[in-house]
Amino acid sequence: MSPFEEPNTALLPSGFIDLLQHEAEAEARGIEAVMDVFARHGYERVRPPLLEFEASLLHGAGQALSEQTFRLMDPESRRMMGLRPDMTTQVARIAATRLVGSPRPLRLSYAGACVVVGTPGREGERQITQAGIELIGVDSAAADAEVVLVAAEALARLRIAHVSFDLSYPALVQSLIAEAGLSDMTRAQLVHAVDRKDAAAVTELGGEIAPVLTAMLHAAGPADAALAALAGLDLPPAIRTMADRLRDVVAVIAARAPDLRLTVDPVELRGWQYHTGICMTVFARGQREELGRGGRYLAYDEEAACGLTLRPEVLLRAAAPIELRRRVYVPAGMPESVAACLREKGYATVAGLSAVDDSQNEGRRLGCAYVLSNDDLIEL
Amino acid sequence: MSPFEEPNTALLPSGFIDLLQHEAEAEARGIEAVMDVFARHGYERVRPPLLEFEASLLHGAGQALSEQTFRLMDPESRRMMGLRPDMTTQVARIAATRLVGSPRPLRLSYAGACVVVGTPGREGERQITQAGIELIGVDSAAADAEVVLVAAEALARLRIAHVSFDLSYPALVQSLIAEAGLSDMTRAQLVHAVDRKDAAAVTELGGEIAPVLTAMLHAAGPADAALAALAGLDLPPAIRTMADRLRDVVAVIAARAPDLRLTVDPVELRGWQYHTGICMTVFARGQREELGRGGRYLAYDEEAACGLTLRPEVLLRAAAPIELRRRVYVPAGMPESVAACLREKGYATVAGLSAVDDSQNEGRRLGCAYVLSNDDLIEL
Repeated sequence: MSPFEEPNTALLPSGFIDLLQHEAEAEARGIEAVMDVFARHGYERVRPPLLEFEASLLHGAGQALSEQTFRLMDPESRRMMGLRPDMTTQVARIAATRLVGSPRPLRLSYAGACVVVGTPGREGERQITQAGIELIGVDSAAADAEVVLVAAEALARLRIAHVSFDLSYPALVQSLIAEAGLSDMTRAQLVHAVDRKDAAAVTELGGEIAPVLTAMLHAAGPADAALAALAGLDLPPAIRTMADRLRDVVAVIAARAPDLRLTVDPVELRGWQYHTGICMTVFARGQREELGRGGRYLAYDEEAACGLTLRPEVLLRAAAPIELRRRVYVPAGMPESVAACLREKGYATVAGLSAVDDSQNEGRRLGCAYVLSNDDLIEL
Repeated sequence: MSPFEEPNTALLPSGFIDLLQHEAEAEARGIEAVMDVFARHGYERVRPPLLEFEASLLHGAGQALSEQTFRLMDPESRRMMGLRPDMTTQVARIAATRLVGSPRPLRLSYAGACVVVGTPGREGERQITQAGIELIGVDSAAADAEVVLVAAEALARLRIAHVSFDLSYPALVQSLIAEAGLSDMTRAQLVHAVDRKDAAAVTELGGEIAPVLTAMLHAAGPADAALAALAGLDLPPAIRTMADRLRDVVAVIAARAPDLRLTVDPVELRGWQYHTGICMTVFARGQREELGRGGRYLAYDEEAACGLTLRPEVLLRAAAPIELRRRVYVPAGMPESVAACLREKGYATVAGLSAVDDSQNEGRRLGCAYVLSNDDLIEL
């Protein structure tokens, strides 16, 4: 569906696409369905702007996104603005400023387009639609679990089957390594080895924590087995507290949604830029790309928060197909009241703008399934 | 509601705002309601990207918007991209390229955010949401009228009362002046005088066409009277054809929607940048800003097209207030099935994430209208 596959004289920049009729409608309906589920759980919509001053857009957690942010000069203030690469940090700004007086926990939702600079030479979308939730002002397993459960319900609404939430805790393994008394060099190499899931290098570099790290490496998989393996390890108290949090979150989710597939990867480090607690990635069977991701972080550098962002473009590849309105050709001169009645019944009416010799042919030419004739619908 | 009125450490650039809970929800619902009306009339949604190469974004009709376009370097292609100031030209590009083989008339709709550079020293929104339709590939009074009628139905869906569509025909008065045999200097001064509606200057500068121009100046007003005045004027044949088009469009609209308020201003020139035929501006009583605007133009420089864009931010100031979901506080430990049932009934459930001493107090604190207690709702 890339515009480059089409005979198209007006090429778009790499990573930017047009969504055509069916796709655009599916995306819009998907976003509204997901936002509706969020609203049912008390998440209220906010809509930050596409551009902000660089200083506020990249404040706190936003710093991690600096390299992915397009910048523009504001001719009015002569200050640099950024085109948002992500909405989470914007929602955190709203929570910390205009909604600082609102009761906590604060539940906010958002949907909109973001733009990233992209990685040179690597293909990939650069305009990314996000639809997500943020649960701000509370730090508990129940809060982490709520974010997963609400997102799971949103995916169920789109009839996406075989969904899996992969839980991780990057700060757990980072702390474990940080406190192992390794040299800076070894520590960096070890993080790299863990990130590559290179068991041999972990054994070689891990020193005292090599056995625990190796066991954690092998523990990744379905939540129950992974948590059982973690439970059997001898962990420093601070690390044990983190492992317990992982266990508690899984317990809350499993009690509420026993059929939801959960996996735990205790050594996953990849792609988490500003998170401080449990992280989650959402997958669906048959989809290579993740459907969404989220986790616990500090909103505006100070307030406990957990959020999750779904990616509507990816959701739609996994979602049940939408049903489009059936189109009825309404020849010129037909009574408007009949056409209005068809619209009320869920049809799309396509008005003939001038008289034609053969209404059925004209309806067919315009992609209609029916033509209106004397109050009757003729199937084409 | 400007962020500058709030004690806010994170000021946004002038012209960019956060929409908070109620406003953001109202905007989203308003857009979907309007898009639904468009879909009922066979307008299919497309979603062009936020950024395009400058060359394609400002192609043809888009040139008029060049000064209002923020530009960015694409590090991938080293070409300049523009942040769209308008979606009409993007839809025209899609129609002329990827949808060049689709049957005409082509009915497309779109909704999304645009960004304009703004006018120095003049306040005003710089992020502008648009929701509109384009009817491409046909040039007739019936087509012009359809655009007005569909937009009017969208406004009625939002229960916006006292709507007025102001029709004009900038090319009519421009042609009249162009063909009057005036010097370049006089012509420019005359256009300026017409634009200011300065009757004295029009009389002084208009030469032979001064009487006709003056009559047209005074004709502006309710459609019937304006058209009657136009009918009585002695116009060159090409100009008469344009006046007849105005008359025909009004006749089609009046036959379909006799209660819709229509005005005609035959000398309106202001703000029309790329239009070639009839133009329309939408107002509602009590709203200073226009709710939308549109008109006839050449899509991608070659194909007949007529479109109209509504401005959701302005619509919402005129629309009936939305009804938000009533919020129910659900204390921790309540059966999930009861909460799910409440959500199905249209409530928003706000989950208690830990036990509290006084559920009613907690519910009140969280802005809930009810608290759930043993399958019962207690009003707060």
